[in-house]
Amino acid sequence: MTATAAELAAMARARELGLAVLGTTSPNPAVGAVLLAADGTPVGEGATAPPGGLHAEVQALAQAGERARGGTAVVTLEPCAHTGRTGPCAEALVAAGVARVVVAVPEPTQLAGGGAARLRAVGVDVELGVEQQAAEEGALGAWLTGVREGRPAVVWKVAGTLDGRVAAADGSSRWVTGPEARAAVHRLRATCDAVVVGSGTALTDDPQLTVRDADGRDAPRQPLRVVLDRRGRLPATARVLDDAAPTLISAAPGPRELLDELFARDVRRVLLEGGPTLAAAFLRAGLVDEVVVHLAPKLLGAGAPLVDDLGITGIGDALTLRVTGLTRLGGDVEIRLRPTRHTGVRRVADSHGATGGG
Amino acid sequence: MTATAAELAAMARARELGLAVLGTTSPNPAVGAVLLAADGTPVGEGATAPPGGLHAEVQALAQAGERARGGTAVVTLEPCAHTGRTGPCAEALVAAGVARVVVAVPEPTQLAGGGAARLRAVGVDVELGVEQQAAEEGALGAWLTGVREGRPAVVWKVAGTLDGRVAAADGSSRWVTGPEARAAVHRLRATCDAVVVGSGTALTDDPQLTVRDADGRDAPRQPLRVVLDRRGRLPATARVLDDAAPTLISAAPGPRELLDELFARDVRRVLLEGGPTLAAAFLRAGLVDEVVVHLAPKLLGAGAPLVDDLGITGIGDALTLRVTGLTRLGGDVEIRLRPTRHTGVRRVADSHGATGGG
Ligand SMILES: NC(=O)c1ccc[n+]([C@@H]2O[C@H](COP(=O)([O-])OP(=O)(O)OC[C@H]3O[C@@H](n4cnc5c(N)ncnc54)[C@H](OP(=O)(O)O)[C@@H]3O)[C@@H](O)[C@H]2O)c1
Ligand SMILES: NC(=O)c1ccc[n+]([C@@H]2O[C@H](COP(=O)([O-])OP(=O)(O)OC[C@H]3O[C@@H](n4cnc5c(N)ncnc54)[C@H](OP(=O)(O)O)[C@@H]3O)[C@@H](O)[C@H]2O)c1
Repeated sequence: MTATAAELAAMARARELGLAVLGTTSPNPAVGAVLLAADGTPVGEGATAPPGGLHAEVQALAQAGERARGGTAVVTLEPCAHTGRTGPCAEALVAAGVARVVVAVPEPTQLAGGGAARLRAVGVDVELGVEQQAAEEGALGAWLTGVREGRPAVVWKVAGTLDGRVAAADGSSRWVTGPEARAAVHRLRATCDAVVVGSGTALTDDPQLTVRDADGRDAPRQPLRVVLDRRGRLPATARVLDDAAPTLISAAPGPRELLDELFARDVRRVLLEGGPTLAAAFLRAGLVDEVVVHLAPKLLGAGAPLVDDLGITGIGDALTLRVTGLTRLGGDVEIRLRPTRHTGVRRVADSHGATGGG
Repeated sequence: MTATAAELAAMARARELGLAVLGTTSPNPAVGAVLLAADGTPVGEGATAPPGGLHAEVQALAQAGERARGGTAVVTLEPCAHTGRTGPCAEALVAAGVARVVVAVPEPTQLAGGGAARLRAVGVDVELGVEQQAAEEGALGAWLTGVREGRPAVVWKVAGTLDGRVAAADGSSRWVTGPEARAAVHRLRATCDAVVVGSGTALTDDPQLTVRDADGRDAPRQPLRVVLDRRGRLPATARVLDDAAPTLISAAPGPRELLDELFARDVRRVLLEGGPTLAAAFLRAGLVDEVVVHLAPKLLGAGAPLVDDLGITGIGDALTLRVTGLTRLGGDVEIRLRPTRHTGVRRVADSHGATGGG
């Protein structure tokens, strides 16, 4: 048996629930769960709470109460079987009398794995791999990159003109894009654990790099602000050093070393907002997983390019991506992409279809 | 009384009919017409035939026959009152017993004007200015530019990477975009009376610049191929000089002079496919009316830019456009735009709301 229409609708909702908590759960995955009663009615939902809090399934079970009995749990990630800070979710599902569990992504770690086996052992019907790719490219993507590659995922965000300029000839870049695109950047920052720029951007633009809400107020949770500054050029007066959020000044020799440093701090999703120099360094190292381009309908004819030299000379060697999203943001255009071929090292994930059964 | 729902649907269809013949009617406007019977049923349609052929209204009347009596003619441009090669359309509508005429764009020329007045004089109900902007930005745009500014309209088409490169560092640019985008360029060429490149593009890429169909065959009607070559660098062996279509080698000193030369040859819509040098020359002169960007999801990090220096130094002076269309073309993205502010001379049309009553 495959998933029913009600289960697929619940899975879409579970992905949404996971996305809504992305940026608040690291180092844990941002999981979403929906509980359907025996007749297919949604009776509970949940998403991973910040570390130490309840898992998605347990929250959904609590909402559902007795209505969970004989019902179906729809979850973006295989329920864990290990007793961590919150007890195994597989046991909680069994205790609640759930008859069926529908899962998008099989648990890829040894530690937490075995949930499906445990459920099946007591007669629960388990379906794995339902709309797995959508979940992997959604809220679970960054966490999976961590599991598979031992580093945070990197989202490169850049605002440029139609002719690929991120700043005008005189260095001015405020504002390339309009208010809707700038608000979207704040929402994007909120989904990340760290925001990274190079010393060049920090010196030229003096950005604060905080998450602000629609009214311009600092959000309660702030990602770590990171400035890559190997020569100690950042002045003590830089706005990124104010007390609105924590800040790391790193002298890591390269992108991979920086990512290792951030991974050790439980960072799983990094927003790269640096200028063309840093963007080129990450792209050359094959360390960009997602790209968000905010394209302003403007032409400059001169100025800093979107990305510096990548060592590419022929059109056949271009770094290629695939468009995963295309929308308007006010007068601007947002294009979301994922690299399909890297200039640098081959990524392990490229040869990984799935990490478990299906 | 304003337009009914049936009339608005007919007007949308009339705009489509006009677009379908764009590129085949110059120097005449590409008009579309739909005839509705007295009960609102569509009973005839037509579009401007090539010069010397029937006007849109007359074709629609011929299809409708007796069912036109008491009906409504829905036309993108005010029916002409003058006796040209085909006789005045206003008279034909009166003779057919049409009770009402719904028009998008009032006739802006003295010569052909007066159609609405003539119709009203004999008791026909005439509605002018219905969805006028859509018609002006559609098939009638180029012809209106001709009437208002005495020059052809210019559509700049460019294929670039995400980082605004039209060719790689070694000059290679085949193919920046995929087959769907390239097919769209052929369809775009077919809507134009001339295709223009500079000697730089002609020498580097040696393009043939013909309209080819999906099977790669030359279309029966071909726009004029134009190479701007002031120093006579184009070799006799260039593909653009083959006999697949007519070709003009121009030594016009600047874009405006070239456009004057083309206007005199009845060209009303020009596709500018030249490289960054020529694009900058047209943009600086304020002589680009529409932009079609085919954006390939690729990064090059180096290579020829979308457009050369525009004399802009600060972000506040950027040439700004507005996005009028956003679609995917295979793996690529098509963005259509219109300039809202020019770097060069102010366009007359910017201060023109409409050219007639409404
Ligand atoms: N529109 C946008 O989205 C946007 C975003 C950001 C920036 N910008 C514009 O970009 C311009 C700044 O460009 P930029 O390229 O100088 O900024 P950047 O990429 O943020 O900073 C470059 C600096 O980062 C430091 N760095 C540290 N580790 C590095 C590594 N592994 N590889 C390379 N560099 C490393 C280098 O200085 P050290 O060697 O001293 O460490 C380097 O000079 C400004 O005009 C700004 O407005 C625009
Ligand atoms: N991806 C794309 O969509 C696309 C499209 C076209 C070209 N390209 C690439 O662009 C590169 C060629 O660039 P390009 O800039 O040399 O090509 P271009 O703009 O087509 O040609 C430039 C030449 O046009 C001549 N010209 C004539 N009248 C002019 C005027 N009023 N103003 C300026 N120039 C005038 C000039 O030579 P004279 O002074 O001798 O007349 C000038 O050198 C190639 O690599 C090609 O592959 C890409």
